[in-house]
Amino acid sequence: MLQSLKIELIKTKKQKPAADQLGFGNHFTDHMFIMDYSVDNGWHNSRIMPYQPIVLDPAAKVFHYGQTIFEGLKAYKTDDGRILLFRPQKNIQRMNRSNERLSVPELDVELTIDVLKQLIAVDQDWIPTAPGTSLYIRPFVIATQPALGVAPSTHYQFIIIMSPVGAYYTEGVNPVKIFVESEYVRSVKGGVGEAKTAGNYAAGLKAQEIAKEKGYSQVLWLDGVHRKYIEEVGSMNVFFKINGTVHTPMLNGSILDGVTRNSIIQLLKHWNIPIEERPITIEELYEASRKGELEEAFGTGTAAVISPIGELNWQEEKLIINGGLTGELSKKLYDTLTGIQMGKVHDPFGWMVEASIVHA
Amino acid sequence: MLQSLKIELIKTKKQKPAADQLGFGNHFTDHMFIMDYSVDNGWHNSRIMPYQPIVLDPAAKVFHYGQTIFEGLKAYKTDDGRILLFRPQKNIQRMNRSNERLSVPELDVELTIDVLKQLIAVDQDWIPTAPGTSLYIRPFVIATQPALGVAPSTHYQFIIIMSPVGAYYTEGVNPVKIFVESEYVRSVKGGVGEAKTAGNYAAGLKAQEIAKEKGYSQVLWLDGVHRKYIEEVGSMNVFFKINGTVHTPMLNGSILDGVTRNSIIQLLKHWNIPIEERPITIEELYEASRKGELEEAFGTGTAAVISPIGELNWQEEKLIINGGLTGELSKKLYDTLTGIQMGKVHDPFGWMVEASIVHA
Ligand SMILES: Cc1ncc(COP(=O)(O)O)c(C=O)c1O
Ligand SMILES: Cc1ncc(COP(=O)(O)O)c(C=O)c1O
Repeated sequence: MLQSLKIELIKTKKQKPAADQLGFGNHFTDHMFIMDYSVDNGWHNSRIMPYQPIVLDPAAKVFHYGQTIFEGLKAYKTDDGRILLFRPQKNIQRMNRSNERLSVPELDVELTIDVLKQLIAVDQDWIPTAPGTSLYIRPFVIATQPALGVAPSTHYQFIIIMSPVGAYYTEGVNPVKIFVESEYVRSVKGGVGEAKTAGNYAAGLKAQEIAKEKGYSQVLWLDGVHRKYIEEVGSMNVFFKINGTVHTPMLNGSILDGVTRNSIIQLLKHWNIPIEERPITIEELYEASRKGELEEAFGTGTAAVISPIGELNWQEEKLIINGGLTGELSKKLYDTLTGIQMGKVHDPFGWMVEASIVHA
Repeated sequence: MLQSLKIELIKTKKQKPAADQLGFGNHFTDHMFIMDYSVDNGWHNSRIMPYQPIVLDPAAKVFHYGQTIFEGLKAYKTDDGRILLFRPQKNIQRMNRSNERLSVPELDVELTIDVLKQLIAVDQDWIPTAPGTSLYIRPFVIATQPALGVAPSTHYQFIIIMSPVGAYYTEGVNPVKIFVESEYVRSVKGGVGEAKTAGNYAAGLKAQEIAKEKGYSQVLWLDGVHRKYIEEVGSMNVFFKINGTVHTPMLNGSILDGVTRNSIIQLLKHWNIPIEERPITIEELYEASRKGELEEAFGTGTAAVISPIGELNWQEEKLIINGGLTGELSKKLYDTLTGIQMGKVHDPFGWMVEASIVHA
């Protein structure tokens, strides 16, 4: 694949947005990566080309049957000019698990990371350096076969686009207010909840809109079977510190196996802070709060890294957590993880991967 | 909208496929309809143009978050040359229900049917006339805003493409073998199962592939909560004749409100055949079969109209229905409904809508 990677550079570079104008996923770099798949030829035709529209038959399966998967990871530029990626293998491995679930052909993990490094090298001056900013990387696969029969596609495109981003939540590391959803369900065991696929996000839009109208920034999903077990929040996994122990919903088939979640668990273990992965009911949280034992709550995800939760609202009953302020542990986790990501804090786990060294 | 419908005709018409080469959704007519939406301008820029690729930013939300809905309906050409549509209002009304669920802007039902008639008029020589063939119409909406924040799109395209089709199941009206799915789940109450949106179909691909490998043509979904209530089959609702009464799963929020389902219920009532919409367990079917009371089973949908079910396989236990043959009622329903659709059988319900009269 790499041997035959074609690179076509843009003639006139786009103007870069100001650091305070970034937002999340609104601006895109000068280049993109594309690779094609056909049943006959497998993955082929790897190319880095100027960022440009995709041209698809209106019958392409992605439009009709949503056979698509994606990933999200970030690259950071350190003060000494190195480019670091946070655990990219984890994302590409998860991409393959999503692929498997969606009947999309597998990708070669190492080759994918290599082309990703090449793409970053080409667009490295797009990595913002202001605090809290980074380069968000969005690899995705779409089914392109123009046919309306409901069956896995014979053709796909794997694309990587990149976006310089500020903080995902404009509120920053300030605690967010979260609405606990009782009517709508994101996913259920046996479904595609643990895959990073488009349909899961479409399914969440309505509830999210309603929550926004009520003044909440995100929805906390409950399980679809019992409607009482905590699943995850929008694009984040979720953690609760109760009486000194940190609890997070176990991976159960309907939530995403977050890379940040996994990293937080490792960090907590490293610090000898007790951490339990288990089924957690929403009632239990309210109970812990009544007993004064619910100390902190926070979401974890690539976009926001750590997002403290200051308030939950479940069936019109509000739960204020840690006086609505950022907890000590949330802050420490945020500082440590973003510190590691920016190359400012020692990385005892070997998480960071240098992207600047390109095997050309 | 109609006032400003622009029509650009193709210069050289494509060659039409032979009637026996049609398949389902593989060939497309010479023209398509497109209309744009923006928050600022609402739906605008209606146009009929030569069938052509769509050009989208790689960050378009449809690729990432699956905000898309679709419909499927058919046009038929009668022996005396009229063009008939089967209950098009039903489809466009359902499209709006799907839109609502997916936070997609609503469409004007009557105007949509009018442009649909215009499009059919332009491509009317594409409607095949061999028995079992028809013109399949696929309206769909895709979210086009190029932004990676998870939120409803600010921009959409509404597109109609059309495909001359043979029978959906190559087996024809012969009974199909159906695999009852115990591991995977299509949808759950609170989810988007009752909307016609891409993610539901992506979620079904894996189970469908496994069933195909085992020699079954489709999957029968069970509910995601109890894993025992019958939901629907692939792209069909499902009916069972037990001891003289016809039973079909009630609309419960996780299955599609099929136009064919609704029509079959009306036909059965018209014939004074008892019909019950209620929760039906899979165990109950096996029980009825053991007692010799399970007389017929069939799926209903636009593509196949009526698809008799000759065998179910639930947890490796096979259930042969009506000796694996097409039942009398299934046959009568098929003949009547396709007869009405082709303008050969009296239509007591006023279902058929003439498409040939275009309000130009
Ligand atoms: C549904 C969902 N849950 C959790 C996460 C967090 O995963 P990660 O930490 O890998 O970003 C994400 C997004 O990234 C997500 O989309
Ligand atoms: C999931 C699903 N169920 C049922 C149906 C049958 O609905 P209708 O009779 O309107 O075609 C369809 C397709 O059309 C479908 O996609």
